[in-house]
Amino acid sequence: MSDEKKSEKKHEDSKESAFKAVLSDVYLFRDSLTAINELVNEAIFKIKADGIYLTATDPTMVALVDYKFLSSAFESYVVHEAEDIGLNIENLLAVLKRAKSEEKVTLDFAKGANKLLVTINGASTRKFTIPVLDIEKGEVPEMSLEFTATVEVKTNVLIDGIEDASIVTDTVILGANANEFTMRAEGDLSKVEIILEKGSPDLIGIEAKTSVASKFSLEYLKKIVKGAKIADTAKIQLGNDYPLKVTFRAVDNLQISYVLAPRVED
Amino acid sequence: MSDEKKSEKKHEDSKESAFKAVLSDVYLFRDSLTAINELVNEAIFKIKADGIYLTATDPTMVALVDYKFLSSAFESYVVHEAEDIGLNIENLLAVLKRAKSEEKVTLDFAKGANKLLVTINGASTRKFTIPVLDIEKGEVPEMSLEFTATVEVKTNVLIDGIEDASIVTDTVILGANANEFTMRAEGDLSKVEIILEKGSPDLIGIEAKTSVASKFSLEYLKKIVKGAKIADTAKIQLGNDYPLKVTFRAVDNLQISYVLAPRVED
Amino acid sequence: MSDEKKSEKKHEDSKESAFKAVLSDVYLFRDSLTAINELVNEAIFKIKADGIYLTATDPTMVALVDYKFLSSAFESYVVHEAEDIGLNIENLLAVLKRAKSEEKVTLDFAKGANKLLVTINGASTRKFTIPVLDIEKGEVPEMSLEFTATVEVKTNVLIDGIEDASIVTDTVILGANANEFTMRAEGDLSKVEIILEKGSPDLIGIEAKTSVASKFSLEYLKKIVKGAKIADTAKIQLGNDYPLKVTFRAVDNLQISYVLAPRVED
Repeated sequence: MSDEKKSEKKHEDSKESAFKAVLSDVYLFRDSLTAINELVNEAIFKIKADGIYLTATDPTMVALVDYKFLSSAFESYVVHEAEDIGLNIENLLAVLKRAKSEEKVTLDFAKGANKLLVTINGASTRKFTIPVLDIEKGEVPEMSLEFTATVEVKTNVLIDGIEDASIVTDTVILGANANEFTMRAEGDLSKVEIILEKGSPDLIGIEAKTSVASKFSLEYLKKIVKGAKIADTAKIQLGNDYPLKVTFRAVDNLQISYVLAPRVED
Repeated sequence: MSDEKKSEKKHEDSKESAFKAVLSDVYLFRDSLTAINELVNEAIFKIKADGIYLTATDPTMVALVDYKFLSSAFESYVVHEAEDIGLNIENLLAVLKRAKSEEKVTLDFAKGANKLLVTINGASTRKFTIPVLDIEKGEVPEMSLEFTATVEVKTNVLIDGIEDASIVTDTVILGANANEFTMRAEGDLSKVEIILEKGSPDLIGIEAKTSVASKFSLEYLKKIVKGAKIADTAKIQLGNDYPLKVTFRAVDNLQISYVLAPRVED
Repeated sequence: MSDEKKSEKKHEDSKESAFKAVLSDVYLFRDSLTAINELVNEAIFKIKADGIYLTATDPTMVALVDYKFLSSAFESYVVHEAEDIGLNIENLLAVLKRAKSEEKVTLDFAKGANKLLVTINGASTRKFTIPVLDIEKGEVPEMSLEFTATVEVKTNVLIDGIEDASIVTDTVILGANANEFTMRAEGDLSKVEIILEKGSPDLIGIEAKTSVASKFSLEYLKKIVKGAKIADTAKIQLGNDYPLKVTFRAVDNLQISYVLAPRVED
């Protein structure tokens, strides 16, 4: 190492830590970010005392992701100063994918630094630095949504229903009433209808003030349903020609919610 | 559901059933149709009292498929009226592929209807409608073939031999005499020869009045050999510069036969 | 078979054997040639009394492969006359890939013949002939290299390090001193550093007269590291801005060495 590099390194090390956290298992963090990455490329990670938060819309503003990865999911988690770190999620994932199951992953961020340090500790020590991006804030719309129906289903109902509907067309009508949750799609010639009735083991719960139905893009739903990787059940909130909210929750320390705008009939 | 849709549904349900059949295991039906689909895109399914029949040529008329899926393969099978149902096989397969191993699949066809109803019953009920096509009949040539040699082999002999030959060229000469079944291919520089002699555990039986050999397109043989998925052995019937007949049979309720025209030397 | 062909066959069989060898397990031969094939398309196989030797450079002359597959790796190995056989490695691999695990593979070469005969014996007998190529000799540069450092690592260190570095750029600096082996890569914004210290279970041995470092193309290293398939450890020999030598050795009968020219800084 040249002298110039050595002094540079010393300088880096002497910076005060703003945030340092260790994951003993990288999978949950990686899988949840992989899901988000379907919709969002770059985002601000808000490092707070109780966890990492992220809220972002997809580039077309049709879908919104709300992400919480709580401190309890880490082996250790120390925040000296709350920070907003703008990152390219694909860059971060490329590094996280390099960790094997038995390896610890440390996230390290110095106060006001322009890069995130990720260290993978196994038989060797592997240090990756990821550049911090200057991402404009405040583009995320505030939403106060009131839903008419709430359904909780096994995630495979959503995954299968979306695949079923994709056979015939590119949109699906999600519907709910007090007794059943339905997914309907109709192509030029073919048609598909999925009915999940109260009493089915795959329908955990259903509540609907009135019968509701809204149409959504299958392209977006396919991306949203990637969040199912972290959970066995999904909470679906619906209205009439109204946005959809889908929430996946892993134990108590990770939650991904999506809000998707409806496709309103011409 | 709108009132209009409700009345439409009632109307549909009131139609008299021509054919209704339930598969407790979709795999055999699906795998056999997947094999056929290699050669045939659209075909008339003849629904008869004892099973479903299909005979069709590939678009170039080089190969003919003859398919029987007998009623005993179904959990229940009721025909009120024999029907010819024209279907796009890929459409049907797209639906059949949506069924999981523990799910029942019901085929339902109303008298004179313009669609086939396929219902998948698991934790949810999933109904698919597939349009019936107007396919011209009578294009299938009648053939009365007399073969000089009949060979029965383990299917892997055919599969491997076709792959072996593909290394060097795009045709293969299938040959048989009283003692051996052979597959030979010769490229510009390379050559391959597969010899299966009487006594080999992979040669179940061989009968040949004289020594015969015919050349066939490997492209077509690769499609035909997909039928091996339903059976462990294949019956091969040959002549001299004569068509080939290959028959795959699963237990007693499913049979796929192929006839392939030879490549006659210039 | 025509009379003409029969007499041709007799003629072939009557040729005196120069070389005949039987592999009871094709995997090691196949895997090692697959590794070499990453860099070399056509090469002269030198058939000697104690084994098969091959030395060749890649088409750009940046990397050199040195290969020894000793006679003890064969079930039987008989050389009547040392021969140089020019082969297209992909052609040979296409045939070797057709052998299954329980099948014996025989290599057969007649004196002065223009083809190699490969026979696969299982339930059937499958004979492949591969054309011998006229490859110019003497293009392989003689090299007498003196290395400053020698490192032995578990192969996964190399494989992972190369993948890690590929995230950020297309070259990597391999370094060694008396205490550690390092791999460093730096992109426009991102950076990665892998440190393997003395005492790590993945570092089998390290010897370095001085601290050394050289930069190499990741594209070539990715091809070289395919040789890891035959071995659990790799011997790495390094200098300062000097070529790299990597050696993979399987038991006592197979060795692949690579020499790779460094990327010298502008």
